[in-house]
Amino acid sequence: MGIIDERIAELGLELPPAIVPPPGVVLPFAAVRVIGDRAVFSGHGPQASDGSVTGPFGQVGNEVTVEEAHNAARLTALSILGSLRRELGDLDRIAGWVRVFGMVSSAPGFDRQPAVINGCSDLLLEIFGPDVGAHSRSAVGMAALPFGIPVEIEGEVALRL
Amino acid sequence: MGIIDERIAELGLELPPAIVPPPGVVLPFAAVRVIGDRAVFSGHGPQASDGSVTGPFGQVGNEVTVEEAHNAARLTALSILGSLRRELGDLDRIAGWVRVFGMVSSAPGFDRQPAVINGCSDLLLEIFGPDVGAHSRSAVGMAALPFGIPVEIEGEVALRL
Amino acid sequence: MGIIDERIAELGLELPPAIVPPPGVVLPFAAVRVIGDRAVFSGHGPQASDGSVTGPFGQVGNEVTVEEAHNAARLTALSILGSLRRELGDLDRIAGWVRVFGMVSSAPGFDRQPAVINGCSDLLLEIFGPDVGAHSRSAVGMAALPFGIPVEIEGEVALRL
Repeated sequence: MGIIDERIAELGLELPPAIVPPPGVVLPFAAVRVIGDRAVFSGHGPQASDGSVTGPFGQVGNEVTVEEAHNAARLTALSILGSLRRELGDLDRIAGWVRVFGMVSSAPGFDRQPAVINGCSDLLLEIFGPDVGAHSRSAVGMAALPFGIPVEIEGEVALRL
Repeated sequence: MGIIDERIAELGLELPPAIVPPPGVVLPFAAVRVIGDRAVFSGHGPQASDGSVTGPFGQVGNEVTVEEAHNAARLTALSILGSLRRELGDLDRIAGWVRVFGMVSSAPGFDRQPAVINGCSDLLLEIFGPDVGAHSRSAVGMAALPFGIPVEIEGEVALRL
Repeated sequence: MGIIDERIAELGLELPPAIVPPPGVVLPFAAVRVIGDRAVFSGHGPQASDGSVTGPFGQVGNEVTVEEAHNAARLTALSILGSLRRELGDLDRIAGWVRVFGMVSSAPGFDRQPAVINGCSDLLLEIFGPDVGAHSRSAVGMAALPFGIPVEIEGEVALRL
């Protein structure tokens, strides 16, 4: 068991399986694309433990509260880590987080996207520590996201070769 | 004639010329920026065969249907390929697709962005095959896009050196 | 004094200090993340000379005019340059601009995002010249941005090693 896997277990966390899309939805792309020492990950959202897309659904500042969306961002981080583990075999291969692009489905006037995406950033720092876990980030407001999810995050990590 | 150009011809497709922006619009940036073995491409939209920006214009789920937007995403893929061919000289230089960031101008509540951006992903896979054509992707809902286009896509490809 | 710093002084420009977030806001990420010869910068917005986030606040096409937003994009470019100077020590280390992702908080129907983000692109070209300053770009409409800022920009530069 790798160091990062131990840390995830210590924190009592579990990574979800690959996404089970809603009926009729085709997602013809890679969850993670590895090119040399880079792993670029697709937009991920919150998953339930069975792999399905989970709510609460809707716009933050409207149907979804900041606290609920913060938790959705935390679940999204776990979804990303699940995809990275499946693709890389071992999360200890991650040399550093590079980019976190945090998208929040936002009601008109909602402006607390950073508080939402902190649910992802804080968890990455908790698991990977301040050096490997450091990342560039944006946290911005979208008109809508697939399946009505409140948060979607894409980005990139650097790999040890 | 390169392998990818042959494949494009086989499929009966044509790549549009460089964008002809609407009167008065200045676009002071590179359609494609090559840095080492990476080619990062700017946001592209659907073009007509004369290079102009083409509709239907408006938000998907409102003025524009999913089917029309799916076609716009397919035209956007052709626009990107046109820019890459002009910049790289030869599309066979593409070693792999890395990132496709698909932006869909979305009416409130519209949540089928993946079905729209599949118009791009499916065409890339058809032309480049499952290995070179594989890509990470996000498909998300924007409040608005330039000139009222329904779809805009930016991303990155890896090059053979 | 480096060549780029001289150019910035010649143009009568000053780079703002690190961001001073509004009370209660925690931003647990790096303004710039350096990985090898890449510097990936986080979403930045317009800053006042004391480092605070500055307005006008709201959606472009609604509370904020195109001219005001163009100026906000110019201020955002200065904010990015400030972060890059603090991280890199010397802006002459920038070998080339790679990616500028320009996000404009947009009222329904507003479609002049390129005119807004030109405030950033034109300044980069003025400071770095047409070769180093060339960049790929998107300029797109967001539903909302943090703190109500009208413009946020993230991206990447390539470094000399």
